[in-house]
Amino acid sequence: MLLNCDLGESYGSWTMGLDAEVMPYIDQANIACGFHAGDPVTMQRTLALAAQHGVSVGAHPAYPDLVGFGRRSMNLSGDEIIASLQYQVAAMEGMALSQGLEPTYVKPHGALYNDMMAKPAVRSAVMLALASYHRPLALMLQATPAAADHRAEAKALGINLLFEAFADRCYDDDGSLLSRREPGAVHNRERMLAQVSQLQSEGTVTTVSGKLLALQADTLCVHGDNLEGVQAIQAIRALVDGN
Amino acid sequence: MLLNCDLGESYGSWTMGLDAEVMPYIDQANIACGFHAGDPVTMQRTLALAAQHGVSVGAHPAYPDLVGFGRRSMNLSGDEIIASLQYQVAAMEGMALSQGLEPTYVKPHGALYNDMMAKPAVRSAVMLALASYHRPLALMLQATPAAADHRAEAKALGINLLFEAFADRCYDDDGSLLSRREPGAVHNRERMLAQVSQLQSEGTVTTVSGKLLALQADTLCVHGDNLEGVQAIQAIRALVDGN
Amino acid sequence: MLLNCDLGESYGSWTMGLDAEVMPYIDQANIACGFHAGDPVTMQRTLALAAQHGVSVGAHPAYPDLVGFGRRSMNLSGDEIIASLQYQVAAMEGMALSQGLEPTYVKPHGALYNDMMAKPAVRSAVMLALASYHRPLALMLQATPAAADHRAEAKALGINLLFEAFADRCYDDDGSLLSRREPGAVHNRERMLAQVSQLQSEGTVTTVSGKLLALQADTLCVHGDNLEGVQAIQAIRALVDGN
Amino acid sequence: MLLNCDLGESYGSWTMGLDAEVMPYIDQANIACGFHAGDPVTMQRTLALAAQHGVSVGAHPAYPDLVGFGRRSMNLSGDEIIASLQYQVAAMEGMALSQGLEPTYVKPHGALYNDMMAKPAVRSAVMLALASYHRPLALMLQATPAAADHRAEAKALGINLLFEAFADRCYDDDGSLLSRREPGAVHNRERMLAQVSQLQSEGTVTTVSGKLLALQADTLCVHGDNLEGVQAIQAIRALVDGN
Repeated sequence: MLLNCDLGESYGSWTMGLDAEVMPYIDQANIACGFHAGDPVTMQRTLALAAQHGVSVGAHPAYPDLVGFGRRSMNLSGDEIIASLQYQVAAMEGMALSQGLEPTYVKPHGALYNDMMAKPAVRSAVMLALASYHRPLALMLQATPAAADHRAEAKALGINLLFEAFADRCYDDDGSLLSRREPGAVHNRERMLAQVSQLQSEGTVTTVSGKLLALQADTLCVHGDNLEGVQAIQAIRALVDGN
Repeated sequence: MLLNCDLGESYGSWTMGLDAEVMPYIDQANIACGFHAGDPVTMQRTLALAAQHGVSVGAHPAYPDLVGFGRRSMNLSGDEIIASLQYQVAAMEGMALSQGLEPTYVKPHGALYNDMMAKPAVRSAVMLALASYHRPLALMLQATPAAADHRAEAKALGINLLFEAFADRCYDDDGSLLSRREPGAVHNRERMLAQVSQLQSEGTVTTVSGKLLALQADTLCVHGDNLEGVQAIQAIRALVDGN
Repeated sequence: MLLNCDLGESYGSWTMGLDAEVMPYIDQANIACGFHAGDPVTMQRTLALAAQHGVSVGAHPAYPDLVGFGRRSMNLSGDEIIASLQYQVAAMEGMALSQGLEPTYVKPHGALYNDMMAKPAVRSAVMLALASYHRPLALMLQATPAAADHRAEAKALGINLLFEAFADRCYDDDGSLLSRREPGAVHNRERMLAQVSQLQSEGTVTTVSGKLLALQADTLCVHGDNLEGVQAIQAIRALVDGN
Repeated sequence: MLLNCDLGESYGSWTMGLDAEVMPYIDQANIACGFHAGDPVTMQRTLALAAQHGVSVGAHPAYPDLVGFGRRSMNLSGDEIIASLQYQVAAMEGMALSQGLEPTYVKPHGALYNDMMAKPAVRSAVMLALASYHRPLALMLQATPAAADHRAEAKALGINLLFEAFADRCYDDDGSLLSRREPGAVHNRERMLAQVSQLQSEGTVTTVSGKLLALQADTLCVHGDNLEGVQAIQAIRALVDGN
């Protein structure tokens, strides 16, 4: 079980995230590519940090919405999604290669991620963007009960998938994340570690209603926005490593 | 003698340049990379057009100034120039490779080009950006009496140069272009073709005062903004090809 | 019956629309405010042109989406819509007042206009933006069979409405515009003038299926993107003026 | 002696400055207008905070350079400066009036401020922007030995000036601020309060070489980027109020 984290989400003079504190504890750094965060200088610094710690890098492209931090759904056409993704992925790829890093995957950000999970047309455009890209890159998406369908879609286009699960979020019975507006949507430390442990040992999560749900996850999404998040990552790291 | 032209300078719903009309007549397409023009969809279309006509492609990066079309000098630090260039070059490279095109050079745009020619610190940052890039890319810059110095600077960093001359602009005695505000700054068709012919056969231009100036040019910069420009390109093409 | 037209939709070095040709024939200029088009210099020029021709001006605010020209729906919160609208309306207001023009209305652009017509939450936010604005400004929206409801919503907030109809678009039976993908969606010159005439004299349009639909319109939306559009505007102007 | 502070410099999801902590202690809030910082929602919140604490507001416009935070000089034409300033000032004015606040001044930000002080052509464009604006607004600029000249320039255009001095910066003998790269460029708490006291009681500062320099300042620029800055503001407030 790998740990992935969104990094490089500062922009110019604005700082976000404790990148230097998080990098030593993760396996995969999702690098913001400039459309929701991550100006070129920030990208270069984040990539250098990943290189220093031997962390794998993936592109973290988004809708073109700096002021909304890529969190607002935008009605892009399929062609616009494909071109926008390839632009961002390519920008990150060339910068990564110049620091001796080979990007291996793409994880869409924010509203683009949510739309990819919810809307077949968006997911198809995202997959086509990777299928027509010159370098083979896996698509990271959410492990859900629809994983087999997603695998079939990806196989038809010849791309690989990486499934991620969430450590600190309570799952609804349908395999989606419980809305943050619901009570119990975000786990405390104890429940979070229990969920990680269960995911790793049994490949299941216990949903909000107590149901067992099978989730095959390749990687866990963790968050390093603040000190508490960093400490949670350290605890998950220790647990996953069996320490 | 090759012909290079700035292309892909539309943006979203705004159109600029007669790209489809120009592409059949040139050798090198300088592709706008999103900072002064050239959204991802436009880039993809322009690259497809280059692939269709077998035209070489180079990145045409700029200062981050959409509203000013990259024509206004901006006081970026060396690190900002390096990161911004690599970002734009990389974005274009990955998109080009995905269409079977291998980018071979970089030509800075507008104010960044002018600053590169005029300010050693900017030129040094531009050269460093290419020297530290993972793919060897030549830098296209203006052929001037300082070419030997520029060659030495490039050699020290291990990068190649491509020198360009201008077909339709009158040269000042110091090898710079006569300011557009001066009378006779822009040649008519006849003088333009005479300048191209002289550049090709003798490696010189006749300056505004009638002086002969040696200019070794690998490529000629041509402009396809309007129908007149396209016709000029066709005439230069015929001349250069010896038709 | 007034004529309104979207103007000032150039951006920096990119030109769009025949503003100077259109301005003499219209009553209301909808001025782009920078979020989908209309940089400050363009705004100033467009306002000067309106002042010169004695044309009323309204703000034409949009979602923050330059590359998409404000044509892509974006999922903004109510607070984001309110603040974004007030920002754009205010920017245009202060520039207009400085040229002796008093803005009198606001017409949302593109996807924001469509969302305002289709989604009560968006319409409510747009109305609240105007209701809480320091200057009384009418909201221009589409005349539809729901006009009475819209009037009631506006009255509750103390704002005025201006209803617009479309000269060159065929109406569906439900009062919406027939999709541009449908045959007959855009009228030829003859049908366009017939529709204008009928709107003016009888307050109705004949829908795609031949049904009569009552539409009380204060103003007609016309388009000056190209020469054909300008000629259509001249013909409508003559018809409306009874020449 | 008033206290002014740059506020509203967050942007979307990125936070900068302790606005809520600073607002109770200052007299004049310089509100970022969207070009270097300050999206519409942030502007609205900052204006509400100013209204709540009875703080005067001024526009804090900048070069259009989000990623550079307006700190990089850009070579705008006079017309571009005028239109860009009026756009930003107007956006802030309409939003302020809608919250019952009347803006009274304009203080350019970052590189635009520095260019205004150093380059007569930029200063002239800034002054013309205010002179041709529909509302009388004072221009806030740095108190220097050239104040009489600046006053004459302003008088010729019919605009008022507000001169500001810096509490925590050491002055060079020519009245400019000692570069931050020089030792002693930024005062410690004690020296800062001494400088404020001397400015207030005697209208002078002691320069880096110990020279006395007359500076007539209407307002003091203070900084609330972090907790230390807030505490400094509180100490200056107490000193200025004679507590």
